[in-house]
Order: sequence, then C-alpha cells, then structure tokens
Amino acid sequence: MDNRVDVREVGPRDGLQMVSQILPAERKLAWCRGYADAGGRHVEVTSFVPPRIVPQFADAEEVARGALEIPGLTPAALVPNLKGAQRAMATGLPKVHYVLSASEAHNLKNVRRSTAESVEDFRRIVAARRADGHAGVRLGAGIATAFGCAIAGEVQAAQVLGLVDALLDAGADELTIADTVGYAHPSQVRGLMKQVMARCGDVPVACHFHDTRGLGLSNVLAALEAGVRAFDASIGGLGGCPFAPNATGNINTEDTVFLLESEGLDTGIDLPALLALRAAVASWLPGEAFVGAVANAGLPLTYKAPARPA
Amino acid sequence: MDNRVDVREVGPRDGLQMVSQILPAERKLAWCRGYADAGGRHVEVTSFVPPRIVPQFADAEEVARGALEIPGLTPAALVPNLKGAQRAMATGLPKVHYVLSASEAHNLKNVRRSTAESVEDFRRIVAARRADGHAGVRLGAGIATAFGCAIAGEVQAAQVLGLVDALLDAGADELTIADTVGYAHPSQVRGLMKQVMARCGDVPVACHFHDTRGLGLSNVLAALEAGVRAFDASIGGLGGCPFAPNATGNINTEDTVFLLESEGLDTGIDLPALLALRAAVASWLPGEAFVGAVANAGLPLTYKAPARPA
Repeated sequence: MDNRVDVREVGPRDGLQMVSQILPAERKLAWCRGYADAGGRHVEVTSFVPPRIVPQFADAEEVARGALEIPGLTPAALVPNLKGAQRAMATGLPKVHYVLSASEAHNLKNVRRSTAESVEDFRRIVAARRADGHAGVRLGAGIATAFGCAIAGEVQAAQVLGLVDALLDAGADELTIADTVGYAHPSQVRGLMKQVMARCGDVPVACHFHDTRGLGLSNVLAALEAGVRAFDASIGGLGGCPFAPNATGNINTEDTVFLLESEGLDTGIDLPALLALRAAVASWLPGEAFVGAVANAGLPLTYKAPARPA
Repeated sequence: MDNRVDVREVGPRDGLQMVSQILPAERKLAWCRGYADAGGRHVEVTSFVPPRIVPQFADAEEVARGALEIPGLTPAALVPNLKGAQRAMATGLPKVHYVLSASEAHNLKNVRRSTAESVEDFRRIVAARRADGHAGVRLGAGIATAFGCAIAGEVQAAQVLGLVDALLDAGADELTIADTVGYAHPSQVRGLMKQVMARCGDVPVACHFHDTRGLGLSNVLAALEAGVRAFDASIGGLGGCPFAPNATGNINTEDTVFLLESEGLDTGIDLPALLALRAAVASWLPGEAFVGAVANAGLPLTYKAPARPA
C-alpha cells in the first residue's frame, strides 16, 4: 500500500488546452476509457472555461457526464472560477480542481485578480458546494507557478506556503503544487514539498511538473523523496508552454509511469496498454508533437509487468 | 571545491560515432575549442578504431594532436584495444579511455572476447604504457552495459563490481560506469554507484548515461547522491542507440549543465556560451537530430550566471 503512486492523466485538459484542432467528445472519452482500461484511476477530463475563450472545451458537460460512466475512473475537471465550479458540480463530477497562481503577476494576467482575491473566490466555491447541494464533491486547489514565473521570475517559498495555509483554511480537500512554466529544479522541489507536506497532514498533495527544461522527471524523483505520491502527466507530453513556444509541456505519462515502476512503485498502470493508448491518441491528433522516450525506444528487455490483482 | 562537477563532452567521439556524414577535423577541433572556451575541461575528442570500421575517425591522430594545442583542455580518446591505445599514446594525449562491456554477450559481439580476456587486454595496455615510454598518460577504464544489456537483459551488480576490482588491480587511473543502452533507473544507479565508490577510494569515477528511456538526468541526480562528480554528455544529445533506432543517445550536455548548476554545483561551464556552441555544431551537421530542452525553451528568467574567476 505504501508503494502506491497515482499518475493523473491531464492530457484531455492541459494537453488539449493549446491544441487548435477540436478533438470530438467521443475521442476525449475514448482517451479516458483507455486510461482506465490500462489501470489509471484519475483523469482531468476537461476544463469548465467559457467556450468563447477555449473552444476546445465547449463540450465540457458532455465529456464530464460521459466520463462518469467509465468503470474504475474518478474523473475531475479544472475550473478557473465560481461559475466554472458550479457548472462542473452540476454534472455530478466527484472532483473539481480550482487553480490560482502563486505569482501575483501571473494571477493578474490569467484571471485579473490578486492571489488574495483568488483565495476568496475559492471560499465562495466551497460555500457554493454546500448551498447547491453538492456536499460529496471533493474540491482540490492548485497553486500554479509555485517554483517560478515566466513573468515575475522568482516566486518565494513563503508566498507558496502562505497560499497552502490559506487554501487549507478555506477547506481544500487536496492540493496540487504546480511548476507551470518549467522553472523547478530538484533540490528546490525537495525543499518546498517537504514544507508543504508538513503543513498538509492528511490532505493529499500532488505535484504538476512540466518538462520545459528537461528536469521534469528529476523533479518527480525529488518530490517522491519529500513524500509526494500523486503526479499529473500527459500522454505523449502533449501540451506546451505559452511562454516558450518551442518547448515541451507536461511531463510524459508513459515515461513517468516507466520511472515510477522502475523505482519499485505501484502506479497500477499497464505500460504496454498505455503505449497502445498513446499511439491511438497520436493518430487522432495528426500534426501535433508527441514526445516520449519510452515510446520511441521501446521497453527494455528487463521490463517486467508488475503483478496485478486479476 | 566540494561543489565541483566535471561534465565531459563526448560528442566528438560517442556523438559522431553513428553519424554518417564525415565532420572535417577542423570542425571537430572547433567543437573542442568551443567547449574549452565555454569553460569545459574534458572532451573525448576521438576514437582510435580502425578507419575501415568507423571512417568518421580516420583523422584520429590529426584531431588528437590538434586538441593538445587548445588552452585549458584535457583531451582524451577512446580506444577499443592495445593497437588503438598505442596509436593514442603516441600522439601525446594525456588521457586514454579503454572500454569493455560488463555483459559477456555484448562484449563478445563488440570485440569477440570474454570480459576476462578484455581485462587481460587492459593489462597489456598498462604494460605497453611503460614499455613505450608513456608513463605520464592516464589510463581510464570504462565498463559498458553496467546497468543492463540490450542482448542479455539484466547485468548483475556482482559482475560489474568484479570488473571494477579487476580493472583497479590492473592499474586503472580512473573508471567510467556506463549505461550504454539506457536501461538504468535511479535507485539502481544510487545502489550500484555507492558500492563502486566504496571500492575506488581516490581513483576518480565518472558515469556515462544515455537518455534512451528518458531517465538520463534522473540517473545523474542519483549518481550525484552516491558521490559521483563526473559525467559524460554530448551536445544536442548527439549519438543514438544502435539497439533502438528511434531513440536518443547520450544525455544532453546543455541540459546536464543546467541541472547541475540549478542544483548549486559548479561545472565551470558558461551556459549561454555552451548554447551558442550547440547552435554552431548543429549547423555543421545538417539533418542530424539535435535534442535538448533548454535549447528549445531558453533559459528561465531566474537563471543566474555563476560567478567565475576572471
């Protein structure tokens, strides 16, 4: 049990966010179903943003409701504000992820609010959950640009830890600490995540890393050392970085699973099935850049499929 | 002083090994000079293999002699056998790297010898050094496929440690432990390298990682934890894996330096100058695949050039 690590597929949300070709809802759901069939339990299936801002997510309700039908899956959705949270909760989704940015400059640019105002917005979402009769929904809070900001540069650990305290106080059921622009490095991750974990007690903590500067998996390793047992990742590393047009985005799900399983941790995910899903997803998005070392090189001869309960 | 880490550029040797277009000697030397100008101290400049086997290295003597003229550089060359070692030592190179494979199957395929016979060959090279009057040459020994083999699969740590003992006994001045085919994972690296370091005392130890399955930099991090302070890398990640045609090869020099400097270690290398060198090398080898996250994404706003003595 101690060896269990969750790899949360965020491709249908973070991966598709910057993809201009609209992937039909049935394909998005096939992606989620394929992930569940491979043994994955968590997918961020969509984002409840206004369709005029991100047309890719105009089908958010349809995808969320479809994902609820997939056996073994706990679907979640990202929400930027109260309106999005109310739409998400109305679908019956069991998990909703709110996100704000640790960098004041980044938060202002993204949602035209100070971080303090964004914490207040999260309090309104927590209040709306009860008022709207969705007491069973788990509300996660994510802290973006927690390791640095492409606008402001350095982000102080004290700022992140202050937000951790504020979000816990506001009632967050879980936290995600995110390196949105690929600024984190391992000793920084180990140091900050130890402090975050110490504050969070029984509240689950995940990390969200981008591989923008090649340190994504090294940062996973550092976060593991700090006790983190959940990581966001995207099949094929889909998703870029708006601040670095040629750069890769999210850490690659296949390589992340390969790292974790190599280290003797249990992701529950069947790697050959995941690689097959990756090939399918790539075929649905012609022309998009899919990265991934294991997909290119193949599994080593020494790879042993972990024993799983039948 | 404790923070010092050597990144040894092996692109002109391991990187070019699988490149079919012949890079002229003057370009190879510009590569070495550029690396020294950026602050690098160690380059594996060529390989003394028979030119009919690898035409790329027909100019080995010319490159070796040219590299000896570069201020601040300690050039080395790879040699597969006694003949190669004698050619290399005759040029006046201060360092010669011999390599054998921990996997019997891989060693047989590569040099048609058992590993025991290859250790005996190294003894002959050590003897020839004295006999030929090259007592000042440092003889390094590398152990390839130390973390797994694309032919035989698993390679036992005991086999690697036995070779470490045998090569130290034969007189190796330094050792390189190599993950030739990208099979290593971090806990394996940490475990094996701690044992290797314990055996080596004052004899310097380097690691040579490939990024074939995406774990290259994570393995660097693990080796650092075991006390390793020298790493091979190749600009642009040049060099592939003959067993995985679509895979990347050596860990990328720029990303390795970025990781190490981010972690507060001192490579002595100026990253912007290294990125400029990468661009030049890429322009000399049109059509070759150059990978590298930092080169694609650019340095973060938070990057600070380390203070160097003028």
